[in-house]
Amino acid sequence: MSTAVQEPPTPAHTIPSNPTESYTSSSLLTGADVREASRNGSYTKSTSGLAKTYIQANLIILPSRYASDFRLLCARNPVPCPLIAESESVGKWDAVKSWLTGLEGTDVLSAHDIRQDVPKYMVYKDSKLVKSHCSDIVEEWTEDHVAFLIGCSYSFESALSEAGLPPRNTTSDTIVPIYRTNIPLCPAGVFTGGTYIASMRPYKRSEIEKVRDITRAFSVTHGEPVAWGWDAVERLGIKDIDKPDWGSSPVSTDGSRFGAFHGDEENVPVFWGCGVTPQEAVMMAGLEGTIMGHAPGYMLVLDCRDWDIVSKA
Amino acid sequence: MSTAVQEPPTPAHTIPSNPTESYTSSSLLTGADVREASRNGSYTKSTSGLAKTYIQANLIILPSRYASDFRLLCARNPVPCPLIAESESVGKWDAVKSWLTGLEGTDVLSAHDIRQDVPKYMVYKDSKLVKSHCSDIVEEWTEDHVAFLIGCSYSFESALSEAGLPPRNTTSDTIVPIYRTNIPLCPAGVFTGGTYIASMRPYKRSEIEKVRDITRAFSVTHGEPVAWGWDAVERLGIKDIDKPDWGSSPVSTDGSRFGAFHGDEENVPVFWGCGVTPQEAVMMAGLEGTIMGHAPGYMLVLDCRDWDIVSKA
Repeated sequence: MSTAVQEPPTPAHTIPSNPTESYTSSSLLTGADVREASRNGSYTKSTSGLAKTYIQANLIILPSRYASDFRLLCARNPVPCPLIAESESVGKWDAVKSWLTGLEGTDVLSAHDIRQDVPKYMVYKDSKLVKSHCSDIVEEWTEDHVAFLIGCSYSFESALSEAGLPPRNTTSDTIVPIYRTNIPLCPAGVFTGGTYIASMRPYKRSEIEKVRDITRAFSVTHGEPVAWGWDAVERLGIKDIDKPDWGSSPVSTDGSRFGAFHGDEENVPVFWGCGVTPQEAVMMAGLEGTIMGHAPGYMLVLDCRDWDIVSKA
Repeated sequence: MSTAVQEPPTPAHTIPSNPTESYTSSSLLTGADVREASRNGSYTKSTSGLAKTYIQANLIILPSRYASDFRLLCARNPVPCPLIAESESVGKWDAVKSWLTGLEGTDVLSAHDIRQDVPKYMVYKDSKLVKSHCSDIVEEWTEDHVAFLIGCSYSFESALSEAGLPPRNTTSDTIVPIYRTNIPLCPAGVFTGGTYIASMRPYKRSEIEKVRDITRAFSVTHGEPVAWGWDAVERLGIKDIDKPDWGSSPVSTDGSRFGAFHGDEENVPVFWGCGVTPQEAVMMAGLEGTIMGHAPGYMLVLDCRDWDIVSKA
């Protein structure tokens, strides 16, 4: 299996892919930097493009009675729900554990406070949003909460760019379009009825096998695409490719409406599993109690690096 | 998570669930017994109901160049393709390895010859069947082959019976009905375009949550159902529930046509991931070279037991 990931001598500090956000500090080079700046309130923006090569994770925090079912949901649906790590024990906000091959002996998340280390949080009570984009969850976190860290496709975007195949959302400075699909998740306990959520990046038809090869190795950040081609749009039950459920409308190579390119060799939609999937599954389950997570785009930045999680197969 | 699996003092020896087959020897109490009898030719029938509590596995043998992609297919689709173990190294027919939690320190497969220990084999060349139900594959096996062992739902059938919820295929002495579905497998390298294959066991609507609870723990033998209810039949793209793609037609409680019971509380279809899935995915991939596997119903019986693989969560 080929991969474009190379270990550079020092982390690269590059331009953020989202133009609506900019650094407040050029010193946020590592995951620990981002977490500290979020914790002390000096960084409050999207983590897109920050601390390159450091893995960014989706954060989902649940009452402990749902932990076992959620773990199973991830185990049964590893492509859209790649579980990287979870609280070392119930109620612990300063230590996580991981069973992932490749992460033994690496600091997934050194000195941290999971209640404050994300720039923006969302809080739900009895499945209703009660706080949006708050700066911490110190008050809401209880001795009964368990935090789960889920892989995010930011990781393989760098690898694609390094291989000369930059995702169009990065070159067009837009947010990756995300769609609900009709692919059912394998049910797990209280989590039933969910479906895959997919992110989409257009490529030339001739590039798809290389794109598959590169992203394949990123097994804990969704891995290779789940579907590609214009026929996949219908198969996935996507009504209008120009109207994603989250993110920006997709961009065609000549700037015209992407959906008009049906059949075009230059603009073929390629879909990956997306970390919004487990969040939606949690919301659909109608859980009781307080559930928390990062605000979309405001991720938890880890200490481990892209090359720590790339499978060596 | 509840489970009905209890470790009995000695393996139970019960009536085979398939009336078309019977034991040639009442001494086949363990996995090793079945393998030895298959190897020396004294046992040539289906393994259904044999060596109770010993795990039975689907066997798929591939040229080594496809091994990495096949491993990934299983990792990305663990519910229909639960990989239990594989050849310790390429070409090795007398040793397997397993990474499964719960199987460390247990003998998955002690003294064996994977080329002779299954009662009946199938052989494909360049994706075409060339030998059906042959007694060994000693001639076909090469130094370049890798064997994969995939979980089988026979394991949880015993647990359901012990909990007073015997699958109807066991009480009616029929073969479990198996269907192609439209749920896409997550692609993995050469393995693209495959879909879930599902086995079906009817239950009363009021029993479904208990059935889910019992089978949930069998995570390496498909775990809890992937879908249930009459609406699932349409959702899975099953045209006629009375005409399964493999196995016997389903049986209704009063002996009439099962499909006539649409909406009936006593006869609700419940679907599980099925080990035929990876076999179909392999066949669809149009691989070159010699591929081998067990003949349907003639499984590889392991040394490990139901309780070795039941998750303790």
